[in-house]
Amino acid sequence: MKVKPVRIGLVGYGTVGGGMVRLLQSERDRIRAATGADLAIARIADAVENPHPDIALPPGTLTRDYRAVISDPAVDIVVELVGGTTVAYDVIAGALRNKKHVVTANKALLAEKGAELFPLARENGCVLAFEAAVCGAIPVVRAIKEGLCGSRILSLHGILNGTANFILTKMRFEKKDFATALKQAQTLGFAEADPTFDVEGIDSAHKLALLAALSFGRFYDWHGFHVSGITRITDLDIQYADEMGCVIKLLAIAQRTEQGPPFLSVAPTLIPRDSILAGVNHEFNGVLIETEAAGPLLLTGRGAGASPTGSAILSDLTHLAAYGPLEREAFRMYPEGLDGRPAAPDDLMAEYYIRLTAVDKPGVMARISGALGDHGVSIAMLLQKLATENGNAVIVIKTHDIRTRQLNDALKTVDGLDIVNGPSLKIRILDPLSANS
Amino acid sequence: MKVKPVRIGLVGYGTVGGGMVRLLQSERDRIRAATGADLAIARIADAVENPHPDIALPPGTLTRDYRAVISDPAVDIVVELVGGTTVAYDVIAGALRNKKHVVTANKALLAEKGAELFPLARENGCVLAFEAAVCGAIPVVRAIKEGLCGSRILSLHGILNGTANFILTKMRFEKKDFATALKQAQTLGFAEADPTFDVEGIDSAHKLALLAALSFGRFYDWHGFHVSGITRITDLDIQYADEMGCVIKLLAIAQRTEQGPPFLSVAPTLIPRDSILAGVNHEFNGVLIETEAAGPLLLTGRGAGASPTGSAILSDLTHLAAYGPLEREAFRMYPEGLDGRPAAPDDLMAEYYIRLTAVDKPGVMARISGALGDHGVSIAMLLQKLATENGNAVIVIKTHDIRTRQLNDALKTVDGLDIVNGPSLKIRILDPLSANS
Repeated sequence: MKVKPVRIGLVGYGTVGGGMVRLLQSERDRIRAATGADLAIARIADAVENPHPDIALPPGTLTRDYRAVISDPAVDIVVELVGGTTVAYDVIAGALRNKKHVVTANKALLAEKGAELFPLARENGCVLAFEAAVCGAIPVVRAIKEGLCGSRILSLHGILNGTANFILTKMRFEKKDFATALKQAQTLGFAEADPTFDVEGIDSAHKLALLAALSFGRFYDWHGFHVSGITRITDLDIQYADEMGCVIKLLAIAQRTEQGPPFLSVAPTLIPRDSILAGVNHEFNGVLIETEAAGPLLLTGRGAGASPTGSAILSDLTHLAAYGPLEREAFRMYPEGLDGRPAAPDDLMAEYYIRLTAVDKPGVMARISGALGDHGVSIAMLLQKLATENGNAVIVIKTHDIRTRQLNDALKTVDGLDIVNGPSLKIRILDPLSANS
Repeated sequence: MKVKPVRIGLVGYGTVGGGMVRLLQSERDRIRAATGADLAIARIADAVENPHPDIALPPGTLTRDYRAVISDPAVDIVVELVGGTTVAYDVIAGALRNKKHVVTANKALLAEKGAELFPLARENGCVLAFEAAVCGAIPVVRAIKEGLCGSRILSLHGILNGTANFILTKMRFEKKDFATALKQAQTLGFAEADPTFDVEGIDSAHKLALLAALSFGRFYDWHGFHVSGITRITDLDIQYADEMGCVIKLLAIAQRTEQGPPFLSVAPTLIPRDSILAGVNHEFNGVLIETEAAGPLLLTGRGAGASPTGSAILSDLTHLAAYGPLEREAFRMYPEGLDGRPAAPDDLMAEYYIRLTAVDKPGVMARISGALGDHGVSIAMLLQKLATENGNAVIVIKTHDIRTRQLNDALKTVDGLDIVNGPSLKIRILDPLSANS
């Protein structure tokens, strides 16, 4: 068998970078025997002098200047694991201009700058591969691009952020409040010191932008998505959801609409307890893909961590060794363009869970339901309970199908009532598998 | 963009063939725009004159002689959808000898003759692609070969046969007996008139042979697998399993052993009700892949049907248009050889569910448990109930961990007791996700 040497330049040698190099060293012989690709680390750049002294490397491999890596003629493929959108941008754009393929796990950068970087890769005859950027070890990028290319994709429903899923799972199974569950996630290394991107849905939106591009052939700017996080979810909401036969998940949705652009959103969502996505718990990710010809497809697995991410990077490297620039020609990122604008969610019909706090006295429910009714919001179920110490009560309402715009107007009126305290919370209720029916 | 014409010769124009051509016609423009592959039907052969008069084809496309298709210089890729292992063999071997790539959904033929056909493809510089042969629309072949090539695969646990899963699901949720559920599957088109391959585990074993080859790099002859079907499973077993917190699935298992060859089997298995594979119901398929670096990964979806199979075939055709013979070099089928022999299951340690019928009188349980104890089989749980009309009782036993060889010896003794009627039934109890722990 022909052996094909692949000389890798790594930029960013932190936890994931170290995990990738360790995995590459342990799997190198097996991958060479199975695929003919001989993956070897040629250069590594990191701002820290030698972050992993326990990893054996040939002398001269390490440098603190990424420019030395992306311009090194001995490097075929650059792996970018710096993260963020500043230096990482310079690394990727520079490597592509130097005609080197790039493998990255950087969803934030691709979501922000994909419309610029993918065409740049194409102009330079290079591939910008990113299996590791979405759902870690789950080969969802390849599944959509290649495995499902024979069938039109109708929708995606994804649990794309392991940190948020871990927190919601702890809140549900261990009756923890949000702050305690977040702290536990941080202690276990499932959440960053600054968890904003994870708990506010931003990281999920970045990944959704990439999945939507693969599925619909058009680049949609994530800034136009409807995005809301899980910081306002309380243990009470989890408990009320349970009474309705549901669990709460931070759900990323990409859905074709009858005409016009797709609906793209990331938001906490109530889904039925026996729905297949409800079984995706702890730090796991899951993507449910509804296709026209191939039916529904679910992929679940570890969405993050040094080894799972490393595994996805090795897959991209091997794929590149096998097919090189052919992939660029064959499975293009945005055949339909770079200028996607998602549908405004205002016209979406859905059932909603609403939680609000109001004064605990007779006649209050009549005023609230009257205000909702005036805007056409019909109540399917009502729970009033848990009188709070200061004379208030928590009220939970499940609505019938209602247009988002109407509900928002109704809640503006309700929140303005003198008997209602603080802004109400609304969560969409959805059965992912029947979403297209 | 460069457009690459792909001229397809189809042999076998039945339900799946017709579905594939319909899907190809409806998706051709989209696939060409997204990937540059222009998939066109050049020739079709079928023993029936024109099975789908509603499908528009250029004049001269149809023939009744497959030889005209596999030798046609205007055909680049042959799609084999004849099924079976006789004519289909001639079609595939002939096409490969004529230097044409082959795409097939024929797991039976590949399991029987893969050790001959894959090397034949290689010698002729061709690819023999078979995404559609395993789990229909689920891109599990590509996921294992390419997506997970960076991580060693430790085990597979699969629900690989939609017919058997449909029957077991009906038995569980609708309290049907085996015969009624099978009849319903046949009425709905989920089971063949002769369901032997499906309900006896043979079809699952064929698919397992292919998944094992992809995962372990060696061709294992399925005739050496431990295979048993679901025909002896009764509604009582489903009910007893439920009392133990379990469901019964026809589970295909490929498991690396510490040393020596992997354990390969297809058998009804009790798995915990909250295990992720237990949620794969009805006619769906599911594969749980446990990897060293990437953790566990579950893929579920439609395992059969004209459209899902057609979708997988279009994926193979597009992949071939993009990469052609490069795939043959890069992701080889059997880098470790063609001569695999699975481990004998005799040394496997497992818990078992045992059901037997015995005379309903005092002292019987003592004799049975005594006979089991003499062979080292320790009882974890015992249910005696449902006295039958002829003075017998059904006894269900859950054992502690026991070696298969010991259990078989014990059951031989038990079945020989004068108080025991007919052969006892044993079913392995397993938690797929903890199988490697």
